[in-house]
Amino acid sequence: MKKIEDQVLIIFGASGDLTIRKLIPAVFNLFCRDYLPENYKIIGVSRTAYSDEDYRKKAVYDNPHLKDDISAEKRTAFADLIHYQSIDTSDTSTYGALKDRLANMSGPTKSKQNCIFYLSTPPSLYATIAKSLAHIGLSHEDDGWKRLIIEKPFGYDLQSALALNRELLGCFKEDQIYRIDHYLGKETVQNLLVTRFANSIFEPLWNRNYIHRVEITSAESVGVEKRGGYYDGAGALRDMVQNHLLQLVSLVAMEPPARMDANAIRNEKVKLFQALRPIPLDKIKKHVIRGQYLESHIRNQHMPGYREEEGVNPDSRTETFVALKFFVDNWRWADVPFYIRSGKRLPTRVSEVVIHFKPNHHHLFKKSRVTNSQNMLVFRIQPNEGVLLKFGLKVPGTGFDVETVNMDFHYDDLTDAYVPDAYERLILDCMQGDATLYARGDSVEAAWQFIDPILKAWEEDHSIPIFGYPAGTWGPENSDDLIEGKNMIWRYPCKNLTDDGNYCEL
Amino acid sequence: MKKIEDQVLIIFGASGDLTIRKLIPAVFNLFCRDYLPENYKIIGVSRTAYSDEDYRKKAVYDNPHLKDDISAEKRTAFADLIHYQSIDTSDTSTYGALKDRLANMSGPTKSKQNCIFYLSTPPSLYATIAKSLAHIGLSHEDDGWKRLIIEKPFGYDLQSALALNRELLGCFKEDQIYRIDHYLGKETVQNLLVTRFANSIFEPLWNRNYIHRVEITSAESVGVEKRGGYYDGAGALRDMVQNHLLQLVSLVAMEPPARMDANAIRNEKVKLFQALRPIPLDKIKKHVIRGQYLESHIRNQHMPGYREEEGVNPDSRTETFVALKFFVDNWRWADVPFYIRSGKRLPTRVSEVVIHFKPNHHHLFKKSRVTNSQNMLVFRIQPNEGVLLKFGLKVPGTGFDVETVNMDFHYDDLTDAYVPDAYERLILDCMQGDATLYARGDSVEAAWQFIDPILKAWEEDHSIPIFGYPAGTWGPENSDDLIEGKNMIWRYPCKNLTDDGNYCEL
Repeated sequence: MKKIEDQVLIIFGASGDLTIRKLIPAVFNLFCRDYLPENYKIIGVSRTAYSDEDYRKKAVYDNPHLKDDISAEKRTAFADLIHYQSIDTSDTSTYGALKDRLANMSGPTKSKQNCIFYLSTPPSLYATIAKSLAHIGLSHEDDGWKRLIIEKPFGYDLQSALALNRELLGCFKEDQIYRIDHYLGKETVQNLLVTRFANSIFEPLWNRNYIHRVEITSAESVGVEKRGGYYDGAGALRDMVQNHLLQLVSLVAMEPPARMDANAIRNEKVKLFQALRPIPLDKIKKHVIRGQYLESHIRNQHMPGYREEEGVNPDSRTETFVALKFFVDNWRWADVPFYIRSGKRLPTRVSEVVIHFKPNHHHLFKKSRVTNSQNMLVFRIQPNEGVLLKFGLKVPGTGFDVETVNMDFHYDDLTDAYVPDAYERLILDCMQGDATLYARGDSVEAAWQFIDPILKAWEEDHSIPIFGYPAGTWGPENSDDLIEGKNMIWRYPCKNLTDDGNYCEL
Repeated sequence: MKKIEDQVLIIFGASGDLTIRKLIPAVFNLFCRDYLPENYKIIGVSRTAYSDEDYRKKAVYDNPHLKDDISAEKRTAFADLIHYQSIDTSDTSTYGALKDRLANMSGPTKSKQNCIFYLSTPPSLYATIAKSLAHIGLSHEDDGWKRLIIEKPFGYDLQSALALNRELLGCFKEDQIYRIDHYLGKETVQNLLVTRFANSIFEPLWNRNYIHRVEITSAESVGVEKRGGYYDGAGALRDMVQNHLLQLVSLVAMEPPARMDANAIRNEKVKLFQALRPIPLDKIKKHVIRGQYLESHIRNQHMPGYREEEGVNPDSRTETFVALKFFVDNWRWADVPFYIRSGKRLPTRVSEVVIHFKPNHHHLFKKSRVTNSQNMLVFRIQPNEGVLLKFGLKVPGTGFDVETVNMDFHYDDLTDAYVPDAYERLILDCMQGDATLYARGDSVEAAWQFIDPILKAWEEDHSIPIFGYPAGTWGPENSDDLIEGKNMIWRYPCKNLTDDGNYCEL
């Protein structure tokens, strides 16, 4: 591991939900695991007026998201690292107070100050904050490095993403900008790279000769909850597909990088995004299925429809489900369909990548009852993180009947493994200047380039239907029609609504 | 399944250990599972004078090897199928009594009599029995088919195997002769074929480009027990390698058969045996390691040495352990070493086939602590029948460290599966005329052709050492030297003597 230098973490949006629920707990975990450098400070920044003590109370002492098996002394020691500065983040003229506060920080961090600015604010403020920081001289690295972490969403469409990149790059250099995608902080996601490139048996099969199709599902059992207002302006395509799921596609499909470093990997990801075949306007209706959940009663459970949710327009045409089919135009993947599916109020919470291998080209065991069995490799991202290989074995007894069985590995089996939370991993990486798991500007733009025409078509062509689906089901039934081929359907980790909405066997 | 015709099973060696311990219980299981045809008879044949009732007592009522959860009525019904005929099997002139007995069998089997002659006698009688049966007209198939099952060992060396085949084929046709190898009746052995040819992901990797070496181990924890007299004249190479383990080699390495039928499969097996590169005389000392177990005290357990065992020559040079390295000279396997190992008084009882895949040709995760991890596919034949894939996954936490984990499948997981005993499967196959799992004459000869020079060299060249190894260890230490390459050794399912000598994790 690289040495971790002394530094200050400045969190914009310090009183927000994400900060309290995820960021502070992640840094607390790093603190407990002794990953913080000798001189480390956190400055919370937002408009609300808090004293340092008030904010420590909110962020630490009263924070239910901090792990609780830690002594009071340690908590206090951690709280003492935290400070607070109130400014109007939308007003550049107020940033002087932040500069002064940083300048007055005691300790060796004074002369050479390394800073991470974490932008956990509404997206509309990203550009303003970056410009204001530059204005007061905090983007220059003469006296210590300066890094900017940008939360999602990065842009609302291609045009706004291009504009945001342009503005950010007007005041920070690309290698100072860390665009977060918390999916990339997940173990199983990183494991896609290791599985592909640290084993000799998978990569030879990892191409159009042996792979029939690639399927990626990200299902949530919950609805929009309290985020109705935000979500209604976004939808599943922006909220999940453009960022998280296309990132997964890039890890599954990219060429081997020359080295395991940030730019080598990110070069391959951009290449992959550039190879995505744009879905032609006249195919969007057929290849992209969108849906919206409707009120339902399943197993005596009542669930409201999307349009009844708080903050949602009662005539909303925002999709809460999307499924699409597309191709990657390069040597490795020509003609191999990729399928992506994401939605809210589905029967369970599950994210997984499924590699479907081609059926046998020759059926030696013709009389077998299982004629259409296909090999399948499943990367389960959540829950029950693990890897599963489905393959054919002989049915015990006479003859040579074949049946499909599972070989599996669960992360849980590594009893002594500490699996860090995604934010913990990502913040630590940024502290060390490792941008491998962050999205580079050109790749965010390339992903938008693929998604943008779909958004535009939906906006402009009202003949493209939005299908209703009862809350607690797997989305519109015609999403199954996307997948061509006899008996070929999505993998359904569970067919029906699970009791706790959260459990799902690997 | 094919229809099972009315038939008679004539067991020579009816009072012998194998008949009582394995054959009768196997037929009893078929009876309980309703696999026997409407008209079915068993005639036990040996020199001892028994009445039908005496023999039923020995074979059924007093037989502790029959499964015991069956009603008394069913037992009696089964016993009633059994008859006994005493003849001097070494004297052709006494066979008339057997012929009369068959002719006097009541029921529809009379006019058209299908017969299986099961030769469960000392090998020295095989030819005599076949000739005597032919002499009294029982090899002709004018009035029903006649099949001959020959127990192992089939020959003592190449010359005797050739002679035996010549004699058998002088009175029976090849397709009437069923040479048994009970290893081929085992589920996991048959599974080698299914795994290779019913999955699209394994066969592309199944060649010299991706496989580093193939390893087959058959270990027994017991010594020679009461078979010292027989074993001292045979040795591990004859007793295990020439038959069972070379059969395994052929299933692992053969080309895909044109069809799943007996002759198509057996054609490929012969081709494979013909491609075995003979070990040159001057390489035998280096590529074939033999050993003999010595007295030991491990964990307070005293085990006698081989030369102290009952029936064993105190100066014996018979091997109780053998390990060899060889090559298969064909397109698929050129330069891929095969390793075979078999022995008695090893730390556990285990049989498995291990496919070692090549190490990564490019190490992307160079800093990883596990640099030499190799993918490995293990077919466990006994105990804990199953399949195991070892591959590299990311160690949870920072960085991209790789560690080797297991994905596995255990036959036990198929809770409702009935796994038939090997003899049960093989007898049922013969009843249906399916010779797939029996060894054909040319393949037995080809296997001897490979083994014979080693036996001859051992006999003639006394400079070839026989190494002692303490009972309860993994054989002579220099068997590890067979395997070339840094850090490359045999797979040791358990390093030390297991407590019950029988347990061994997959």
